[in-house]
Amino acid sequence: MVRTAVVGATGYAGAELVRLLVAHPNVNLTVATSEKDAGHPLGDVHRYLAPFGLSLVKADVAAIAADADFAFVALPHGASTPVVSGLVDAGLRVVDLGADFRFSDRDLYESWYGTHAAPGLLQAAVYGLTEYARDRVAGAQLVANPGCYPTGALMALLPLGGSIASPVFVDSKSGTSGAGRAGKTEQIFAEVTENIRPYGTWKHRHQPEIESTLANLGEADVRVRFSPHLLPIARGLLSSCYVQFDRPVDLAKRFADAYASEQFVAVLPEGEVPEPRNVRGTNRVEIGFAYDRDENCATVISAIDNLGKGAAGQAIQNFNCMLGLPEHTGLQLTAALP
Amino acid sequence: MVRTAVVGATGYAGAELVRLLVAHPNVNLTVATSEKDAGHPLGDVHRYLAPFGLSLVKADVAAIAADADFAFVALPHGASTPVVSGLVDAGLRVVDLGADFRFSDRDLYESWYGTHAAPGLLQAAVYGLTEYARDRVAGAQLVANPGCYPTGALMALLPLGGSIASPVFVDSKSGTSGAGRAGKTEQIFAEVTENIRPYGTWKHRHQPEIESTLANLGEADVRVRFSPHLLPIARGLLSSCYVQFDRPVDLAKRFADAYASEQFVAVLPEGEVPEPRNVRGTNRVEIGFAYDRDENCATVISAIDNLGKGAAGQAIQNFNCMLGLPEHTGLQLTAALP
Amino acid sequence: MVRTAVVGATGYAGAELVRLLVAHPNVNLTVATSEKDAGHPLGDVHRYLAPFGLSLVKADVAAIAADADFAFVALPHGASTPVVSGLVDAGLRVVDLGADFRFSDRDLYESWYGTHAAPGLLQAAVYGLTEYARDRVAGAQLVANPGCYPTGALMALLPLGGSIASPVFVDSKSGTSGAGRAGKTEQIFAEVTENIRPYGTWKHRHQPEIESTLANLGEADVRVRFSPHLLPIARGLLSSCYVQFDRPVDLAKRFADAYASEQFVAVLPEGEVPEPRNVRGTNRVEIGFAYDRDENCATVISAIDNLGKGAAGQAIQNFNCMLGLPEHTGLQLTAALP
Amino acid sequence: MVRTAVVGATGYAGAELVRLLVAHPNVNLTVATSEKDAGHPLGDVHRYLAPFGLSLVKADVAAIAADADFAFVALPHGASTPVVSGLVDAGLRVVDLGADFRFSDRDLYESWYGTHAAPGLLQAAVYGLTEYARDRVAGAQLVANPGCYPTGALMALLPLGGSIASPVFVDSKSGTSGAGRAGKTEQIFAEVTENIRPYGTWKHRHQPEIESTLANLGEADVRVRFSPHLLPIARGLLSSCYVQFDRPVDLAKRFADAYASEQFVAVLPEGEVPEPRNVRGTNRVEIGFAYDRDENCATVISAIDNLGKGAAGQAIQNFNCMLGLPEHTGLQLTAALP
Repeated sequence: MVRTAVVGATGYAGAELVRLLVAHPNVNLTVATSEKDAGHPLGDVHRYLAPFGLSLVKADVAAIAADADFAFVALPHGASTPVVSGLVDAGLRVVDLGADFRFSDRDLYESWYGTHAAPGLLQAAVYGLTEYARDRVAGAQLVANPGCYPTGALMALLPLGGSIASPVFVDSKSGTSGAGRAGKTEQIFAEVTENIRPYGTWKHRHQPEIESTLANLGEADVRVRFSPHLLPIARGLLSSCYVQFDRPVDLAKRFADAYASEQFVAVLPEGEVPEPRNVRGTNRVEIGFAYDRDENCATVISAIDNLGKGAAGQAIQNFNCMLGLPEHTGLQLTAALP
Repeated sequence: MVRTAVVGATGYAGAELVRLLVAHPNVNLTVATSEKDAGHPLGDVHRYLAPFGLSLVKADVAAIAADADFAFVALPHGASTPVVSGLVDAGLRVVDLGADFRFSDRDLYESWYGTHAAPGLLQAAVYGLTEYARDRVAGAQLVANPGCYPTGALMALLPLGGSIASPVFVDSKSGTSGAGRAGKTEQIFAEVTENIRPYGTWKHRHQPEIESTLANLGEADVRVRFSPHLLPIARGLLSSCYVQFDRPVDLAKRFADAYASEQFVAVLPEGEVPEPRNVRGTNRVEIGFAYDRDENCATVISAIDNLGKGAAGQAIQNFNCMLGLPEHTGLQLTAALP
Repeated sequence: MVRTAVVGATGYAGAELVRLLVAHPNVNLTVATSEKDAGHPLGDVHRYLAPFGLSLVKADVAAIAADADFAFVALPHGASTPVVSGLVDAGLRVVDLGADFRFSDRDLYESWYGTHAAPGLLQAAVYGLTEYARDRVAGAQLVANPGCYPTGALMALLPLGGSIASPVFVDSKSGTSGAGRAGKTEQIFAEVTENIRPYGTWKHRHQPEIESTLANLGEADVRVRFSPHLLPIARGLLSSCYVQFDRPVDLAKRFADAYASEQFVAVLPEGEVPEPRNVRGTNRVEIGFAYDRDENCATVISAIDNLGKGAAGQAIQNFNCMLGLPEHTGLQLTAALP
Repeated sequence: MVRTAVVGATGYAGAELVRLLVAHPNVNLTVATSEKDAGHPLGDVHRYLAPFGLSLVKADVAAIAADADFAFVALPHGASTPVVSGLVDAGLRVVDLGADFRFSDRDLYESWYGTHAAPGLLQAAVYGLTEYARDRVAGAQLVANPGCYPTGALMALLPLGGSIASPVFVDSKSGTSGAGRAGKTEQIFAEVTENIRPYGTWKHRHQPEIESTLANLGEADVRVRFSPHLLPIARGLLSSCYVQFDRPVDLAKRFADAYASEQFVAVLPEGEVPEPRNVRGTNRVEIGFAYDRDENCATVISAIDNLGKGAAGQAIQNFNCMLGLPEHTGLQLTAALP
């Protein structure tokens, strides 16, 4: 049993981590933190987690290090860095779900997020898109869990490497839990229901994360134009990637080669379409595609749960990988109705 | 044309007032206020209102009085009192959509809302449940527009007067716009969707408003036990009233007597049920009922739009009444799909 | 491992049974039936169940009996009777999720549902509201799983026995999955969203199920007036029970006495309210209440998942009970966000 | 007053036509038809239309011609042709909301829809994208109202003519009312909520309608790859068009030139995004865009109401145009909250 901490347990990703970790056979969840609700049971914030009797404490590095050997950190970007640095120094292994350690290029990070407080750790962190990094993840002390949008887009695009003509258009549609639990007027029910809201078109911080990961994996010349949309659903993420190729491509073969042995990835037969409902609550990815020989272009669509493969699910997949456990340990395979 | 102000134009009730008043043939909408967004076009806050080119100003009594002869005040309770007092002193006629002037009994008001800053106006204000007060409304300078829940419950209960055995149980289900536009975590989409949330059971401030209005209209001995619920819908309000009688009652006759000549009230044949969707965007009320001769009890259900008959619609109905216009002037009769 | 069949695996209750049973440590799911989709993989109907590779067959009693020792039957009422009779004759133990065996009184059943094709089995079947019948369930060959509405109402009302003044008003609000998967215009999205629809007021077949169960457990003189409503949510069921007492009652003590040792029932402190979101996907029940000493009346509210404790969850709880397993085996305790 | 018929008044587009036409100052709505519900009041099907007292009749051409001088036809494709032909022969002017007369090229029509029963009318019909065809619409006897998706895409793309590099990717997201009122399992609430469903990727019949209209207006070489998605909303349509240019383009100027004088089109400042909620219930179009000088590509986003500018609204705009009325007659400018 691994003594485990969830730092930032009351946000949606943190709460989903708790939901999964309490049922993980190798985990002893010893610490759950919240700055705002420290001193209260987690069940006071999320009553569906009340049966597990966890109490919230403030995120004190020494205290966490005393009680845990592994930490999941689910804090806002910027807030992660000092906590993660401290925990790494104290010898813990860490999966950070924020953006702070997702860029190996400090300048690129700082041009989108501002000054980085621990740039020395950027090179040490492994970008944990598990299917593409499991060997490095296995040996890492610090894994940077990919963003939800990059996960969806990269799982769709990476098998196409070497043939993509720039630019790629990524049109993503996300559930509101991706925007966090803060009370903002633009997020209240009456502002979200019966609508779809584009936001941050081409200016979202996940655009450079997608581009730089493509570059790190060999696609240095591909520009991505990323258009996210807010859906009136709580969780779920669909990404439609519009790709022009510079040579004919056999998409069925590409996806089969990439994912035939991946337990979390379902490549659908041509004509079937991915839907977030099919992966809700799981770490699964559905991928579908249509290819046009005349125009030599494709639509590739992926569906994930933004809190699953897009956050807590992949974090646990990385945890399993780091500990040498089967990757599906503690991860449910079946979705459920909403 | 009546020069008209909407004080508090960015909340949901205020915005619905603007939506209706810009199309009202007797209204010249000269003032729209917002403390928070003064200096900006109303279209910056609610882009669907952008075509009308209104600019927001702070709620200064003298400035409003200079530009308007009539004011709708849609402010939080407490905040209404000084503005309404000032406007009344300046000679304007006012419909106040808040709670500040709904109680004739100062002690009762203060036991639920705290100290009243202008108790002298309580007796002057007319409680504007139009169908039951149109003569007094016609001559009033200040009309207190009923709360959304009291409107729904009272329209269902008042025709039963003289035969109700206490207590009456009122189970109401409301859209989220009734809770305002403030950004609160409990109101964000992911907390509201796929759920129904009881709140304020028996402790909601609309309970004494229902009871005291029943008492004012002759039902002094009827206790009301009021249970509101928050629905995952933006607008709409359904109230199911569970009533035990102390004598046999002919409900069909009671409702026909009360509402046969009311243009905004549809009493449904037994077996048909009211639904908020049928009255969305309108000032209409649907009422249905089931009566049990064996147990001498009834379920009476009413459906209104909480922003229509429950707020802006009834406010305009009262305005029309005060000005001697046909009551439906400027009020659309047809609902629309969501 | 118990060889187990799900008869009627494509409806919502059947699919939820499959979702839970594939993870149940004592179950080998050998048969899944569908009249309409026999010959196809279950994953073609519900792709979220595709990972388990089940194939659908027609519901042939002999074939089921050859491959299974236990059967869950989730068929429309009427359709259950011949299948259940056949399986019982063949020696299988059965939990029937339909209404066919919920009434011990044949006349009462037939007055609401029409002629019963196997009345001899009515006395043999045990009504499986587990907390109130676990001893009889343990030894039963045939368990009639309670309806979703009766489960919610009875869990709230039964602890109040001996003090209820008739009639009790039950105002229930259900997710649409309770109405099944059939394509009907009244159930399509645009007819359901942004609305709440009362239906079957006082005429719903679950009313006599609630009354007769109360009578069987000693409350012969209590009449129930049941008002269901359709919510714009997929799953979840909230029941508000309005009760007048004939003597003072200590509700906190009543509920503590009834449920303190029940692992699936959470009695909330006065002031906290049950919400379907807290029990989504689980077999849990939340109960809250408000009591008025002056009027000697109460509101008791229960929240369940209509597909959980209201259907598949309780069916598995009964299965566990019949097999002498811990009642929570295979049942998740934690809800998840929608 | 123009004696007017709505043929097919119970579908969503037909009912929206009725909702608008009963308030149109130049219309006397004399006929409303339904094959299925003939003999019943329209209010029995859509109770929100009950206040207008219309009775449904079967669609008999002679009877319609006796009572009406103008007809809106909102029937399924194929079913329109005989009715429209008959009405045109009888001398009525007609706006057909179906697909039957949207293609001037018979072969293209038949390759997507099957044999056309009145090909001789294809050349006579005017494709009524009003802003681009108002002169021809004014003189037409038969106007083919554009499809909802083509309307959204073409309003975004046509100002870019002469500079588009093929192919254009159109990613559209529509409310469910676009799929009609038929009861299908895939359309029921629990299948649609908390999900987004791609469908008909690159195979939807609106793809050739977009392409052929572009060709008719001078863009013969532009291929469109169209990907529609079903949203969990009742009405509203957002279309994101991803365009590569073959020369630098000044988008702000293009859109200003095209739409500065159009009362129904709002071109948003760069950085603001169209949202369906802002145009709900109206005939308005919102257009926003982002342009990338480095890659010489753009995202152009349009928002319409699929039942407004995408169906009934534009049909009435065309009607006004045909009769020489101001185009906004009878069309509300303001949206409302859901």
